[in-house]
This record gives sequence, C-alpha cells and structure tokens, in this order.
Amino acid sequence: MSASKKIKSGINPEFSVKTRKVKDVSYYLNGLQNKNRFILSECITLLESTNVAKRAMAGKILDSVIYPTDKSVRIGITGSPGVGKSTFIEAFGMFLISKGHFPAILTIDPSSQTNKGSILGDKTRMQKLASHQQAFVRPTPSGNVLGGTAEYTKETIHLCEAAGFDFILVETVGVGQSESEVDNITDINILLLQPGAGDDIQGIKRGIMENADIFIINKADGRQLELAKQTKAAYNNAIQLFHHDVKSWTCPVSLVSSIENKGMDKVYEHVSSYILLLKNLNQFDKKRLLQEQKWFETQTLKSLQHIIFKNKVVANKYFSLSDKIRKSGLSSRAAIQKMEDIFISLLKNKT
Amino acid sequence: MSASKKIKSGINPEFSVKTRKVKDVSYYLNGLQNKNRFILSECITLLESTNVAKRAMAGKILDSVIYPTDKSVRIGITGSPGVGKSTFIEAFGMFLISKGHFPAILTIDPSSQTNKGSILGDKTRMQKLASHQQAFVRPTPSGNVLGGTAEYTKETIHLCEAAGFDFILVETVGVGQSESEVDNITDINILLLQPGAGDDIQGIKRGIMENADIFIINKADGRQLELAKQTKAAYNNAIQLFHHDVKSWTCPVSLVSSIENKGMDKVYEHVSSYILLLKNLNQFDKKRLLQEQKWFETQTLKSLQHIIFKNKVVANKYFSLSDKIRKSGLSSRAAIQKMEDIFISLLKNKT
Repeated sequence: MSASKKIKSGINPEFSVKTRKVKDVSYYLNGLQNKNRFILSECITLLESTNVAKRAMAGKILDSVIYPTDKSVRIGITGSPGVGKSTFIEAFGMFLISKGHFPAILTIDPSSQTNKGSILGDKTRMQKLASHQQAFVRPTPSGNVLGGTAEYTKETIHLCEAAGFDFILVETVGVGQSESEVDNITDINILLLQPGAGDDIQGIKRGIMENADIFIINKADGRQLELAKQTKAAYNNAIQLFHHDVKSWTCPVSLVSSIENKGMDKVYEHVSSYILLLKNLNQFDKKRLLQEQKWFETQTLKSLQHIIFKNKVVANKYFSLSDKIRKSGLSSRAAIQKMEDIFISLLKNKT
Repeated sequence: MSASKKIKSGINPEFSVKTRKVKDVSYYLNGLQNKNRFILSECITLLESTNVAKRAMAGKILDSVIYPTDKSVRIGITGSPGVGKSTFIEAFGMFLISKGHFPAILTIDPSSQTNKGSILGDKTRMQKLASHQQAFVRPTPSGNVLGGTAEYTKETIHLCEAAGFDFILVETVGVGQSESEVDNITDINILLLQPGAGDDIQGIKRGIMENADIFIINKADGRQLELAKQTKAAYNNAIQLFHHDVKSWTCPVSLVSSIENKGMDKVYEHVSSYILLLKNLNQFDKKRLLQEQKWFETQTLKSLQHIIFKNKVVANKYFSLSDKIRKSGLSSRAAIQKMEDIFISLLKNKT
C-alpha cells in the first residue's frame, strides 16, 4: 500500500507512523484524543494481540482514557445474512453523520477467523462509511472457542468512545450465540428483517427476538413495498404477545429502504426515544453498570477456563470424555466425576 | 406418620425400611426394579445429599441401573405462575395413566430453597397424582448459586426411568434461566398459556418461546372459551414468524381445559407426533447424546467453578470486585485481570 493511498483512506498525516519512533502510552492517548482513526485501529490491534507486552500496553491505554460513557449510544444490529445489514448500516451511518454524529461500526463476524479477507470485505461492503472522516469501520474477530465470541468488543467500544465516536453500531449475524453476548454490551438492539411472512425467509431463531428493542423491515421498496407492509403488521401483532424488559416500551416495527435512503429518520427517532426512556427511568447507567458486572462474571469464568485448560492433561481428558459421551454413550455423570477429580488434584494444597 | 398412612400413600410394604438393616446398592436397585416409589425417593435424596458417602452411593446406583432410554419421553412444562400448570399436570398425568403410562413429575421450584414446605405443597397441588400408584411426584431443589439450577435433575430423570416411569414431566416457572437448562434435559417442551392477548397477562419473556415445541392455551372453558380461541389464533400467527430447530415441525397451538379434562388427547397426540418425527429424522437419540455431552460441558465448568470458589481468597476477591464494578465503576477489564492473576498464582507449578 503506497503512502498516498494511506492518506486517502483517512489517516491524518501528522500522526503518520514514521514520524514517531517510540510508541508510548501518550502516543496512543494523543491519537485517540485527536480522533485519529489509524491510531484507534492500532490500539484495537494491541488489545487483540496475543503478545503480553502489547496487551499490557492496551491495558494502560484503557486505564488512562476518560470517556464520557453516557454520551454514547451502543446499538446492536442483528439480522440473517441477506437481509441487508451492511446496506442498512451504510445508510443509517451516513444519516447519523448528517446529524453531526460520529458512528463507529464493529462487526462480529464468525467467519473472520478463517477468512482473513473479511477486513477488506467489511470495508468494501460499507464504502462510504469506511472512507468517511467521521466514521470508523472495524471487524472484530470472533475469537477462539474457549476465549469466546467478541472477547474484546466491550473494550473496543471503550476505545472508540475515547476516540470521540458517539454511535457505536455492533453488527452480528442473527444465527448464533453471539447475540446474547452482544446484549451484554449494547444499550439497544435492532433486529433487521425483510419483507415476507415465514420463518423460511427470515431464518431468525425465535430466541433472537428476545433481545430486540426495535424491529426494522428492510427492503421496503419497489415491488416488495406491499409485502413489507404486511410483514410489518404481522410483527406488530406478534410483538404484543411478548414481554419486554422495560414494561412501558412497546417495540416499534418500521419500514426502511436502505437503497432509497428511506426511513432512517424513523429509526433514529426510535433509537432516541428508547435511550431517553432508559435515561428517564434511571436505567441507562444502571444497565451499563450491570452489564459491566455481568461481563466481569462471564469473562472471569472464561479466563479461569482458559487458564486451567492450558494444562494439556485437563484439555485432553476433557475432549476425550466429551467424545466418549457422544460416541460410546458414557454417562455425563461419570465424566463429570472424572473431571472433578482432575480439578481437585490440580488444586490440592492450594485451596 | 403412621404405618397405615405410609401404605396408603403408595409404599409397597415388602420394601419397608424396617425390614432391611443394611441399605446396600442391591437394596436400592431392587427397589427401583420393583417400581418402589419410596426407594426411588431415597435414591434421589442420596443424589441431592451433601454427604460424600451418600453421593458415592447414588453414583453406584446410577452406574448400575439399566434404563431403556428411548422408551421414555421427557417433557418440559413451562408457564407463568397462575397459568394453571399444576392443574394441567394433574389432568394430563391422569390421562397418561389412563393410557397405561407411568408419569413422573419433577418440579424445579426456585423458591424451594427457602420454602422447605414446597414438598408438601407440590403433593397438595397434585393430589390425585401424588397418591396414585402409577405416578411419582417430586420437587427438585434449585440448588445453590454456584452449583446451578436443577443440578441433579438429569440424574433424577435417569433414576425415575430406571424405576419404570416412562413419561417424565419437568415443570418450571417460565420466568428465569432454568428453562434453557431444562431444554438440555427434555425431548419436548410445552409452553402453557392462558386466554388473553397481551404480555401483561402471560408474563412470558419473549425468549421462552424459543424452547417451546407445543403451545397450550389452558383455561379454555366457560366464559373464557371465546377469548381462548382468539388467543390461539394470535399465537398461531406469531409462530409462523419464527424458526423451529426441526424444519418440518410447526408448533401446534391447542386449547385445553384442565378442570373440565378437555383437550388432553390432543396434547398427547401432539407430543406423540413430535417424538415420532424426531425418531424418524434420527434426531431423538442424537439429541439425547448431544444433551448428555452439553450437560457434561456445562456441569464440568460449574464443578470447576465450585471447586475453585471454595478457596476463600478467590471467593472474597470475586465478590468484592463484582461489587466494586457496580458501586464504584471499577472497569471489568481491571477486575478480570485481578482474577486472572489469582487463578494463575493458584495453579502455578501445576499447569
């Protein structure tokens, strides 16, 4: 990649890598304060690094940044592949920019582990946003099995907020487990649907609805407009049968055309209303603190797992027992007992 | 309790406790083979005991029983308080008995930890079943926080099956986390609803629907019959919007009157159809093996947690950090780091 290309893609020349020899904490903090998207990227890379020193540096940065948390809005965006998430995010992101906001888009892509090309892929999918000075687009690797999905997403959000981004859009594919984890890091969740009544078209697992605060029927344009209206009515009815955590909130269903740039104002309005409601109910900060606490609890267990399963005896035994259950009908009880014995012997004299 | 009362409540006199001095494995196994409900209860009590020797005895029993797993049907029954779960189970259980089945009812009651009276409570709620020779009613304590909900339910099911019970009904209150765990031990899940459209009446969290395979509108009698029909139509529409794990299954919604004993045949039919479908798709045994594997994985982690949190330093640090996050805004990252340091030092020289 040539230097000119780098500048074109939005790096402030004054923060070019070559002008600094030592990258200390102040280098990164200055970069974040100056909304330098390249240095923000560098910080996230430190965070995701397996290198201990780099992780430690990321820790120092995170400890030093001051971010006005309640000024940001963290939005989860879920929907099946093909529903038009990228197109919607591109349109909604540009709408946010037109309102004077600074959107950051984090995509949690389960395929990014195997498909290293997805970084470029995401930037191609959201070309306008990726090249806009007021926006930041970054794919988050889904991490390894034991480390869990979206291990660093929460901290990545903090870094983005520290760099002045005030609308954080976290995109997930609505088919896996990542959604309930995303629920632990976002203030509000949008479920993107497409015109069409049945489950065959939506491919949405029933449980995904649980996390949604706003429903959007995308592709409400051209020939599909009528069908979109019917879909809207159907979801409006369905929603009445369920119980939202915030009693006074009824999930709105709205029509959107991302390619025609229609309905973005409504989405913005719904998001704003919900955030305002949370704040009025004193639940906004409270929810974030509870999320932080919950995050600590789940991540601590993951860390514990991670640390103990580094022991090869533990890991091998675990996987071979798990295999035996499925293949030879070993009882889970007997297998759990064996694992307990291993844990107890590992921790003997220590606990 | 007098001896005559004991006999009345269904204990075979030949297996009376007093005639045996030593309760060895064969005592319990014989009891199970003879469908002795009192000895089945004793086995479950061993399982739930905190006494190591008793737990070991339960282990021996579980290792020795031979149960023809694919002959039983494990049904999860969920619904908000007030929806009429006990009345339904009483009616459905008696229907099963009339069909020649042997139903066992396990209730997972979150309140049973504090309210020791719930054992009597459940038996009072389902009087006909509790006193019937062909049925077995047992509340399961929800366990402690670290040990998790329904820790022994899976093994209790195995014991019931070993004692010849072929329909295992696991009842939960559809408001907490226990439902997704129950999903890991049942073949089919029934969601019990009542007439009325809105979420205020049902109190069902949206996510609960995810686990349901059959929807039942209870109390479809008298003045509420018309409303029940409307509710049925509404759920029938809503269900079309979601995606069932078994593609060829559309969740049926049926009307039931537990007090008038109506609709039990339909429920039985729906349960049978679903089980048959699973078996035809070769998913019945496969699902159980996967559940067994999943149970091993989650319970192993719980055991690990349990063992490591017995260490007071670990436990105290954990709870104080968790508190600090919520109360003083400590970052989860910093807290996780501290817990990691503790785990690593605990396992030093061992991993």
